[in-house]
Amino acid sequence: MEMITSNKNEKIKNLQALLKLKKERDRQGVFVIEGLRIFKDTLETAPGFIEGIYVSESFASGTFMDELKAGISETDNLRLRLSEKITVIRESIFNSISQTVTPQGIMCIVKKPEYRMEDITGALSEKSGHVKILLLENIQDPGNLGTMLRTAEAAGTAGIVMSRDCADIFNPKVVRSTMGSIFRVPFIYAEDFCAATGQLKANGFTIYAAYLHGGVKYTGVHYDVKSAIMIGNEGNGLTDEAVAIADKRLYIPMAGKIESLNAAVAAAILLYHV
Amino acid sequence: MEMITSNKNEKIKNLQALLKLKKERDRQGVFVIEGLRIFKDTLETAPGFIEGIYVSESFASGTFMDELKAGISETDNLRLRLSEKITVIRESIFNSISQTVTPQGIMCIVKKPEYRMEDITGALSEKSGHVKILLLENIQDPGNLGTMLRTAEAAGTAGIVMSRDCADIFNPKVVRSTMGSIFRVPFIYAEDFCAATGQLKANGFTIYAAYLHGGVKYTGVHYDVKSAIMIGNEGNGLTDEAVAIADKRLYIPMAGKIESLNAAVAAAILLYHV
Repeated sequence: MEMITSNKNEKIKNLQALLKLKKERDRQGVFVIEGLRIFKDTLETAPGFIEGIYVSESFASGTFMDELKAGISETDNLRLRLSEKITVIRESIFNSISQTVTPQGIMCIVKKPEYRMEDITGALSEKSGHVKILLLENIQDPGNLGTMLRTAEAAGTAGIVMSRDCADIFNPKVVRSTMGSIFRVPFIYAEDFCAATGQLKANGFTIYAAYLHGGVKYTGVHYDVKSAIMIGNEGNGLTDEAVAIADKRLYIPMAGKIESLNAAVAAAILLYHV
Repeated sequence: MEMITSNKNEKIKNLQALLKLKKERDRQGVFVIEGLRIFKDTLETAPGFIEGIYVSESFASGTFMDELKAGISETDNLRLRLSEKITVIRESIFNSISQTVTPQGIMCIVKKPEYRMEDITGALSEKSGHVKILLLENIQDPGNLGTMLRTAEAAGTAGIVMSRDCADIFNPKVVRSTMGSIFRVPFIYAEDFCAATGQLKANGFTIYAAYLHGGVKYTGVHYDVKSAIMIGNEGNGLTDEAVAIADKRLYIPMAGKIESLNAAVAAAILLYHV
């Protein structure tokens, strides 16, 4: 295995660029995952997507390394290729590029999953026949976006359609808060958010907009078999254009002096209610 | 007004200590709020709690300053005292101690609100006669804790009882994510979490524990008039002791491969459902 001992090494520079810059992630079509749990998830869900495995010295000499190799060997045909992709990084260098407070000693460069609108609209819930979609407009906080992806998977959501001004789903903070959902819930960035919403309507979806200034109480609505829940920006809510294209406006009652709920909280309440 | 031009000034050192150290917040019985919105909230809800107002040079010369003084003048008897408490800080120093990416130029030192268990158990919802309480055990993430406080207010929760190992509610990150709820929702840290839960039971509350390993589906339960929802640590859930003292175990169904929901999301789904 290759061992990196200098922070001027090209691979280190590349990891740093991929962690920090959306531009670079877009150009190369890859992103970085960090931590043992998400590595195992990825190995199970999408082993072919792993392009490079980077471990710290202590990780390389610990028991996890055997586990890692054992994990890799389970995915037979990829075994050799993945083992060849392991690079060891000097402890201090690994820790300096790590995005976590207590680094676990493993990062990977992973190919971005790519979806089409049909991957989302074509889904059918096996259980109830109901299909739910989450529509996000201009969500800026990476932690919120990741939490929404995780909640969406738990609530059995078919997929997520985002406006292009939403935070980058491949930002390390988003990836961390998704807890692996990034490989299991289909998502797309729509060039034109309203056009994409219109496309969903044409596909038989009813669009429900979470609205702060009136509408129907969310518990008093009969939701259609094909429902799309639309959530807007953390500070400003949905744009007028987005609200106008929705079929119904929903509000979540709020006691006290609260002006709005956290966007991920609002999404959770609505997705679980629907 | 006093003007601070050195970062060695005792007031600057004190602000930094209060922002960083729970120990110092505890010793002085105060904490720091930052931003115009929470300042206005505090001025409205608890003007007598404000001990010092710190503004940046640009804030002091901007239109907000007049607004601030106008806001202060509305609370008649405090007017003079609050105006005397304004200190201007050199721009670069203010920005270096600010906890936000785009500093708004205003921070305050504020007395901690203090509550007793009776402030929480004695509350009565005016609307339905139902009383909800949130019980939190070992919540570690400041953002989660703040979001829960904000959601609790919106859901009409009477108050929050926390185990002493929860994150410090006066941590700047918590304060920021509460969006002002910190002055409106009563909360206490219980020295003995299980004893406090027992005290709630003695007061007629039914305790519902959010549990990852079985129990009753949360939508299939008839909730009592006095309900307390118990949520555990982000990584490990509730301790066995806490689960044992609860009256009922609730689970939130999860699709996909999700092991658990974000703690603030789980709290939101349950509080809004109850």
